[in-house]
Amino acid sequence: MTEHEKNNASEDEDVFFDSVDGVQSTTVIADAELLEDIEELVRAEARPALLNILLDLHSADIASIINELPREEGRYLFEILPPEEASEVLLDLHENVREDFFEELSAKRLTEIVEELDSDDAVDIVAELDEAIAQQVLEKLEPEDSAELRELLSYDEETAGGLMATEFPVVQLAGTVEDAIAAVRETAEETPDIYEVYVVDEDGVMRGVVDLKNLLLVKPHTHISDIYDPEVISVRTDVDQEDVANVMRKYDLLTLPVVDADNHPVGIITFDDIADVIHEEAQEDIQRMSGIMEDTDTSSSIFEIFRGRLPWLLVGFAGEILAALVLSSFEAELSRIIAAAFFIPIIMAMGGNAGIQASSIVVRGLATGELALSRTFRRLVREVSAALLNGSILSSLLFAVVYFWIGDVNFGLTVALSLLVVMINATLVGATVPLILDRMDIDPALATGPFITTSNDALGLFIYLGFLSIIYL
Amino acid sequence: MTEHEKNNASEDEDVFFDSVDGVQSTTVIADAELLEDIEELVRAEARPALLNILLDLHSADIASIINELPREEGRYLFEILPPEEASEVLLDLHENVREDFFEELSAKRLTEIVEELDSDDAVDIVAELDEAIAQQVLEKLEPEDSAELRELLSYDEETAGGLMATEFPVVQLAGTVEDAIAAVRETAEETPDIYEVYVVDEDGVMRGVVDLKNLLLVKPHTHISDIYDPEVISVRTDVDQEDVANVMRKYDLLTLPVVDADNHPVGIITFDDIADVIHEEAQEDIQRMSGIMEDTDTSSSIFEIFRGRLPWLLVGFAGEILAALVLSSFEAELSRIIAAAFFIPIIMAMGGNAGIQASSIVVRGLATGELALSRTFRRLVREVSAALLNGSILSSLLFAVVYFWIGDVNFGLTVALSLLVVMINATLVGATVPLILDRMDIDPALATGPFITTSNDALGLFIYLGFLSIIYL
Repeated sequence: MTEHEKNNASEDEDVFFDSVDGVQSTTVIADAELLEDIEELVRAEARPALLNILLDLHSADIASIINELPREEGRYLFEILPPEEASEVLLDLHENVREDFFEELSAKRLTEIVEELDSDDAVDIVAELDEAIAQQVLEKLEPEDSAELRELLSYDEETAGGLMATEFPVVQLAGTVEDAIAAVRETAEETPDIYEVYVVDEDGVMRGVVDLKNLLLVKPHTHISDIYDPEVISVRTDVDQEDVANVMRKYDLLTLPVVDADNHPVGIITFDDIADVIHEEAQEDIQRMSGIMEDTDTSSSIFEIFRGRLPWLLVGFAGEILAALVLSSFEAELSRIIAAAFFIPIIMAMGGNAGIQASSIVVRGLATGELALSRTFRRLVREVSAALLNGSILSSLLFAVVYFWIGDVNFGLTVALSLLVVMINATLVGATVPLILDRMDIDPALATGPFITTSNDALGLFIYLGFLSIIYL
Repeated sequence: MTEHEKNNASEDEDVFFDSVDGVQSTTVIADAELLEDIEELVRAEARPALLNILLDLHSADIASIINELPREEGRYLFEILPPEEASEVLLDLHENVREDFFEELSAKRLTEIVEELDSDDAVDIVAELDEAIAQQVLEKLEPEDSAELRELLSYDEETAGGLMATEFPVVQLAGTVEDAIAAVRETAEETPDIYEVYVVDEDGVMRGVVDLKNLLLVKPHTHISDIYDPEVISVRTDVDQEDVANVMRKYDLLTLPVVDADNHPVGIITFDDIADVIHEEAQEDIQRMSGIMEDTDTSSSIFEIFRGRLPWLLVGFAGEILAALVLSSFEAELSRIIAAAFFIPIIMAMGGNAGIQASSIVVRGLATGELALSRTFRRLVREVSAALLNGSILSSLLFAVVYFWIGDVNFGLTVALSLLVVMINATLVGATVPLILDRMDIDPALATGPFITTSNDALGLFIYLGFLSIIYL
């Protein structure tokens, strides 16, 4: 721990400062030095000393530490945790670390852990288990919990149904504030996270919501119909998680009711679930743009890094062998004008850059729903116009460079014209391919990064050497 | 509107379905068809008909429509909105659209709009105004509001102080639930968003929090000290927004108290503010990785697109002219072995890909704080080992291709060895440059995308042709 400065804020609890200066917590926040201390204690198998440290930490920090430790040492740490702590920690572990742990945990220990969790978290854990183990866990649970989890398991993990928790208070529209408070009291036995009460009519159909704040500020006999908010945005269980995230972000919602096909409330999504979705979706787009197929991060093993990257490298490899074939088919031109080879890099790179710039905007626009309102054609016109402007400036510059360097006007004009055409072409490819993939229901993020670059390379070189051969032969 | 299916959920309000099937709202959700209807009405200046449509829409949807419309038509729409609607819509407009509007709005209208907003939103708007106009608005506001805004304006926009709202309820640790409810009542006059009450001691120092739920479930005379939660994570006003987002996401917090240097609560950050930060930071990283300098999106004008992209294109241009110089310095080798030119693309592309793959992981790890715990050296070893594995596979493949195609073992070995060295070198550059920039307090995202690709191009070609000249001359 870098700083243990005691703070006068609290007499019975120490306040510690994190390595991020200014973030304060009554629990200890993990940093690299603490990690090394823990690693030493694990090697010494100093169980009481470790437990002492761990129980002062937030579960998210214990998870960070286990993610960072070598797998064996991490497992030792996880095993000594009591079920309540273990369940919280398990949720925050990296998926690949968690998978390894599952192989070693007994159905009994897993059941203890699942019992501690809210329904939305419990279902995520059960869904990750092997079929046989999952069945054992479901059988060991209370019948009611088990039925709820089976129901939740039936939803696609990446939909509203897969994200929602089933613990929420409901009150009849004809009821009173007292009834609503009773519903809150009942729900509070299952979850600490309650922010609003759903209002339903006699058929159980969603009619609105009441804030806890509003319940607090009126008399217990007030009618719900006098204080509820009938304006409510909800999603059906089958709405995709990316759309759920976009809706919550767009309308600034901290919670979002989930309803079934008949508009009965069946769940609640809170913002912390959605923060992870926003983060993951952006991360996925970034990884795809960077030519990484599998989810890898700073804790991934060498083999995971290797395996995540190889597929796109192979795509790139194949594309560049095609580029080599294009070049070899212009061997005569290249050997006559060796200077033509000097400008292969600039043609490739500027086409690649223009393509990536155009594709990334379209891919993000599709991901965040911004493009839903847009008229595609107008968008393309703007992209190409901007490429025309940028291409003109860069082509003029290139002409000047080539002319003063090589001293040949025709050659300079050919290289410059090629650059302009390649940039406009790459922009068109970059902007349209993701749109086409999206229409075909393929993730448009696959079309950025290496894919756009590679396909623009072969195409760009063909354009460049094609122009050269027309003008010179 | 594509579907207007009436839902039996509600008798007094129509429920409309969005173009995203399954998202339901009691307000109309905008889609492309509605946009065209509105555009026609704007052209016809059909003010009553437009108001009729607009007042059925959520402010976020009105903003989406204005963002999409040509600037003049958008302004007409904005001008007919009443102040309350206008203030909400203004917040959701794109920054560049909002800037244009500011030039046209009177200080009086701006003051009306600012008065409607919560402090955290009001300060964002005032901060965007021209100095002179901002002063006029501040003078027209109530002295109390104006003092509060001046205080908030003193914080850096991208810190906790810049994000926080100042409307929150506080209760003394020695107080009762009744006192807390009174504090909630007072705060409720200023903002609808209240989820918890801060607990302070007699010196006003932060001691903990009480959920609204807990206030609801106990008797009014209960002592706060019996029900409050002393475990609270808070941030100081000067903590960077990216760290704020990481803390809230890591610890699953819906709200986060902000404290001053003496640990007095001064503000509250809610998750909706942070969702935008997570989104923006990811967007910024993606844009920088894609070679886009300024924030552009699907609604940006041609000139904005052009201006956002030119800087990185110029960097790329300069780098590739350097690559041309490298090639020209090996002119003798290139003219002797013209086949050497065929493999320029693959050397460039695979170096570029490997560099981007390594850099993007490091950049994201730094952005999300995941790398804080990591030991950098171990990370580098893993990256280079994975590159060695991938490089070996691709080099073997390349040797086979070149050998069967060109039929020259030495040449095949040279090209294959070059590829391996270039990939490992690019990985090292990609993984270390962002770390170095981060140490120097420069945004590491600047080091991915075009920067890494371009610097690897010249370096990679130098390695490739250097090997060739050593072996052949």
